[in-house]
Amino acid sequence: MPIRNIAIGRPEEATHPDTLKAALSEFISTLIFVFAGSGSSIAYNKLTNDGPASPAGLISAAIAHAFALFVAVSVGANISGGHVNPAVTFGAFVGGNITLLRGVVYIIAQLLGSIVASLLLLFVTGLSVPAFGLSAGVGVGPALVFEIVMTFGLVYTVYATAVDPKKGNLGIIAPLAIGFIVGANILAGGAFDGASMNPAVSFGPAIVSWTWTNHWIYWVGPLIGGGLAGLIYEVIFISHTHEQLPTAADY
Amino acid sequence: MPIRNIAIGRPEEATHPDTLKAALSEFISTLIFVFAGSGSSIAYNKLTNDGPASPAGLISAAIAHAFALFVAVSVGANISGGHVNPAVTFGAFVGGNITLLRGVVYIIAQLLGSIVASLLLLFVTGLSVPAFGLSAGVGVGPALVFEIVMTFGLVYTVYATAVDPKKGNLGIIAPLAIGFIVGANILAGGAFDGASMNPAVSFGPAIVSWTWTNHWIYWVGPLIGGGLAGLIYEVIFISHTHEQLPTAADY
Amino acid sequence: MPIRNIAIGRPEEATHPDTLKAALSEFISTLIFVFAGSGSSIAYNKLTNDGPASPAGLISAAIAHAFALFVAVSVGANISGGHVNPAVTFGAFVGGNITLLRGVVYIIAQLLGSIVASLLLLFVTGLSVPAFGLSAGVGVGPALVFEIVMTFGLVYTVYATAVDPKKGNLGIIAPLAIGFIVGANILAGGAFDGASMNPAVSFGPAIVSWTWTNHWIYWVGPLIGGGLAGLIYEVIFISHTHEQLPTAADY
Amino acid sequence: MPIRNIAIGRPEEATHPDTLKAALSEFISTLIFVFAGSGSSIAYNKLTNDGPASPAGLISAAIAHAFALFVAVSVGANISGGHVNPAVTFGAFVGGNITLLRGVVYIIAQLLGSIVASLLLLFVTGLSVPAFGLSAGVGVGPALVFEIVMTFGLVYTVYATAVDPKKGNLGIIAPLAIGFIVGANILAGGAFDGASMNPAVSFGPAIVSWTWTNHWIYWVGPLIGGGLAGLIYEVIFISHTHEQLPTAADY
Repeated sequence: MPIRNIAIGRPEEATHPDTLKAALSEFISTLIFVFAGSGSSIAYNKLTNDGPASPAGLISAAIAHAFALFVAVSVGANISGGHVNPAVTFGAFVGGNITLLRGVVYIIAQLLGSIVASLLLLFVTGLSVPAFGLSAGVGVGPALVFEIVMTFGLVYTVYATAVDPKKGNLGIIAPLAIGFIVGANILAGGAFDGASMNPAVSFGPAIVSWTWTNHWIYWVGPLIGGGLAGLIYEVIFISHTHEQLPTAADY
Repeated sequence: MPIRNIAIGRPEEATHPDTLKAALSEFISTLIFVFAGSGSSIAYNKLTNDGPASPAGLISAAIAHAFALFVAVSVGANISGGHVNPAVTFGAFVGGNITLLRGVVYIIAQLLGSIVASLLLLFVTGLSVPAFGLSAGVGVGPALVFEIVMTFGLVYTVYATAVDPKKGNLGIIAPLAIGFIVGANILAGGAFDGASMNPAVSFGPAIVSWTWTNHWIYWVGPLIGGGLAGLIYEVIFISHTHEQLPTAADY
Repeated sequence: MPIRNIAIGRPEEATHPDTLKAALSEFISTLIFVFAGSGSSIAYNKLTNDGPASPAGLISAAIAHAFALFVAVSVGANISGGHVNPAVTFGAFVGGNITLLRGVVYIIAQLLGSIVASLLLLFVTGLSVPAFGLSAGVGVGPALVFEIVMTFGLVYTVYATAVDPKKGNLGIIAPLAIGFIVGANILAGGAFDGASMNPAVSFGPAIVSWTWTNHWIYWVGPLIGGGLAGLIYEVIFISHTHEQLPTAADY
Repeated sequence: MPIRNIAIGRPEEATHPDTLKAALSEFISTLIFVFAGSGSSIAYNKLTNDGPASPAGLISAAIAHAFALFVAVSVGANISGGHVNPAVTFGAFVGGNITLLRGVVYIIAQLLGSIVASLLLLFVTGLSVPAFGLSAGVGVGPALVFEIVMTFGLVYTVYATAVDPKKGNLGIIAPLAIGFIVGANILAGGAFDGASMNPAVSFGPAIVSWTWTNHWIYWVGPLIGGGLAGLIYEVIFISHTHEQLPTAADY
């Protein structure tokens, strides 16, 4: 049932079997994504004895996140739409493509997936899971704008490749573009603020390492950027058609 | 409406809603592309304390540009055709696949997207945005030929994968091939002249850093290479069929 | 003939021409995959004079395995389904998507492919083929869990992209996701236990180098992870439909 | 017209417009491929002051060749089938999928494309174009087997993804698999014999640098490996169907 306007949803929706399956799908997808992504940072720290960031480290992080996010979106596409990111879910909500209740369920599942991935990493590596933070000399304002701009690009990509009904060959372009824009942005922003673009990705490591310095940036930035992208794409490029963001078998 | 010959277009076309939407699409696509691409160079400079170019730096730039250009072309494909490059637009014009007016609107949008991306990078990184230039010992002639040959390959790829009507599985091959040829060429030409293949990509950083040494190479080279590719592909491989370069929902 | 429950299969199946062709396909696919994958490790050892692991080494291994596994799955897809991995075959068996006999034939072919690849590498490089093992300071428990989690992600990906009947654009997403999740996981787990996720990949080098320390981890971990993924995906997400894991021309 | 047995072809075929267009397509595709591929080696030599091979150098070469070959095959697919490699053309001939005359025209075009790319590189870089050769300590026998095994994998991939008629989603898998297997093999063989798998790729730089030491390996190895792959795949996996290797618009 296409829901084009901001909607709250019926309470029973949150416990509907389809919603629970979608939540499990978001949980597993986010777990897979964060395990490989944050795991690559821990591997880098191990191999360099916690050495300084380097181009090789950024490349490693970019490939790990791009590849794993492609997979996380692809495996979730049929069941939950493969959001794997509260900013994407929020962008979908702002554009009227998911109800408030279902969106909240998604975001809880994503956060839990990230926490479990971080706990698993803590156990299997025996090393600390690095929280996102600002590099030396990077101010709060610039970091916030960094996250806004990068997440705008990410959610704009989600809308253009996975929502826009004019798209023909949807299946492969959407997850590939979503993975690649995150990989590309990490090669730019990773050296400055870690390039999260995803509150769930930042939340799990923050919980496990109990590091909250500037953590709000990784919520406010992505939610502003994702919301803006959803709004702008919806209003300007989709306007009055009646399609919706894929939340089930729309891929 | 397929326009196969070089055409000027009607003045009202430039302000038609579809043209404005296409312009906005080109603006955002180029912004996303330049933000990640030039951003990766700034990140490299930050991580190496403005150290010399290295293979790791080239790899980083190649992946950032390949991934981000794939995204920029994909997200623009449905709306503007995803040119993201004045040389591509010029090659489309030479082959008779876009009118002069619409082409000019596209190029202005691309240049603005690159300028805004460069200004954003200036703010979020607090570092200078590096302008394209020749490496030590590289002459103007060789650099010009470098840009001609590389952009010929790029626009030839655009024609072969996005214009040629015999293609079956168009949707994914075109943006992937366009991103990958730029990534591959950066691994060769990046060490010599930066491997721009795109006047918009060079123009934004030149404006923001106000660096104009040899800047003309990054216009003349790509326009010659792109124009040649459009002409040759059109005359030899397409000749008298009646397809056109994708400018809207042709993907 | 779809076989949805755990089944032994008829004895004549093992010598049926189709089964033999499938076995040859698994043999060649695994040979191609291990030759490039383990070959990249030998190349790294040669170029660094058996130096310590580094981010560049992990990146090289990740790309070699991701690219080669994409190829190995793609070239086998039409003939055997492109399992290339006893854990995938076991996950397919647990989910009721391949008979015991056919599964055993597959696994034997995969092991032989890995052994022949390792012997070829021994000859062409003149260097030792490195067996999988734990990095200094990594315990048996964490390594086992590492393999379980990573292989769970891999076989979950196989099910979600290659088995789940709701998928539309199956052909390209499945092999790409399978290659990419292995590449991404190597960037995390490669620094700790080599990130095998595949008993065949570990078995060939173990035979040729006759190194069996902790070798069981590379069987038990992947089989548990793969079995769990097959069971969970089958029960929760597929349940009572009647599709099967691709073993022939289902791609 | 499907030609399934080894055939010589009619003399007028060599000058038929379609054959000439296909030759031009092979010429341009090979030029694009060699320009980026060999160009990445020259860039590495420039950035490291002709330093020794390193993992970063292999990664750069692997990505440049994988990306550029994907493009070269994709842009040629509609016109010539995108062989871009005498070993692929020879494998197609052995399997009865191209006539002798057309094959000879293809190979001449490929060699010319590589020569022109090498001459262009010589001019634009002002540096020597490195010929393929054996690393210190690598014997002729192992290097020959290296080329045989790697090219067997490449041409087996061509047959499995671009010839085998049972394939569904042909368009994107074939060029991607062809590019990726070359990239993966470079990460293994590149440290030992350069990992050519393609006589044209070796021939251009050999001509321009006039270096012929062990050059025969880069013809004999790929032709044996490619021929074997064509023969085996044709006999065992395709046998009596009547499809042919794509030489025109079969993608």
